[in-house]
Amino acid sequence: MLLAEPLERAIEELSKLPSIGKKTAQRLAIHLLKNDQTDVDSLIKAIVELKTKIHFCVDCFNLAVDDKCAICLSQKRDKTIICIVEEASDVIAIEKTNEYNGLYHVLGGVLNPLANVTADSLHIAELVKRVDSGEVTELIFALNPDSEGDTTSLYLIKIFKEYPLKLTRIARGLPIGGDLEFADIATIGRAFIGRITV
Amino acid sequence: MLLAEPLERAIEELSKLPSIGKKTAQRLAIHLLKNDQTDVDSLIKAIVELKTKIHFCVDCFNLAVDDKCAICLSQKRDKTIICIVEEASDVIAIEKTNEYNGLYHVLGGVLNPLANVTADSLHIAELVKRVDSGEVTELIFALNPDSEGDTTSLYLIKIFKEYPLKLTRIARGLPIGGDLEFADIATIGRAFIGRITV
Repeated sequence: MLLAEPLERAIEELSKLPSIGKKTAQRLAIHLLKNDQTDVDSLIKAIVELKTKIHFCVDCFNLAVDDKCAICLSQKRDKTIICIVEEASDVIAIEKTNEYNGLYHVLGGVLNPLANVTADSLHIAELVKRVDSGEVTELIFALNPDSEGDTTSLYLIKIFKEYPLKLTRIARGLPIGGDLEFADIATIGRAFIGRITV
Repeated sequence: MLLAEPLERAIEELSKLPSIGKKTAQRLAIHLLKNDQTDVDSLIKAIVELKTKIHFCVDCFNLAVDDKCAICLSQKRDKTIICIVEEASDVIAIEKTNEYNGLYHVLGGVLNPLANVTADSLHIAELVKRVDSGEVTELIFALNPDSEGDTTSLYLIKIFKEYPLKLTRIARGLPIGGDLEFADIATIGRAFIGRITV
């Protein structure tokens, strides 16, 4: 009764977004209400195009406009190295360092039994297939340095240690418990240079 | 080149929202990308309905589903008192206290020459008209306790001191320099009870 129903609904939908609480959602909703229709239209258009134009790369599950992402399509990348990351945003963070020239594999998360994320819900089978059929000689583990990331790395190492591969992990220059996506460029770059055999 | 163009666009549009920086916008965009289409659709629908179904009350410029808002339409409200606030979100905050039973007038901002907000861009003429034609006996100033709020209150007091009206300001129980929208209910309620004649 206090809030009109459409406002209530908008606040509810906005507060489902990550890092947006009830109060921020209310502020955003009222901002949108006061905003010009054209501004709101271009926000909506951007979100719609985000969903329709961007897909996940069929090979590595990075963001892609076509079937394959720009990195998989590039002739300049070293196709013998695959860097394993949790999310597509990690690819963006690593690319900004200019320290890495191989391919990627986006797992789409990390093992987390409490949140019902098992090996089957990650892109692990696809990674095994890539290694089986490809010219890969090195796998680099670049998961977040927290317990879920470490557990997932160990799970993958167990799978790939039978293969004739160099298995490496980026150096713990990253702050433990932190979030790769938000680390600074220099730290991520250093971690790539100082990677160690596992 | 690093980011696909639709993603770049979505991040740009999202970072235009208040309190959303570039990194948060990137996180939101990637969340939307990963999210189910139905969830994104219901977010978009909520925003569209927010803009189409909610208007501003023709009398007090509060949020309204019809021409007039629920408060102006109510038979239970005291129509001899008008409380002047900056934004519709302030009405929501005050209503939650249950300390006030009069009407409102939403200015749509405060005087701020640096941001090009002059008296003409606020709903001041409409307030004068309401006082002229109405049964109003008291105006309560409930603007944010900062310099712009105070300047705007003084500007309005100058206009209305010639009228046979009681002019009051809510008590400075509010933390100075703070934001009414985010004050706690008890503080706003106390400020209403302790209002002083100006």
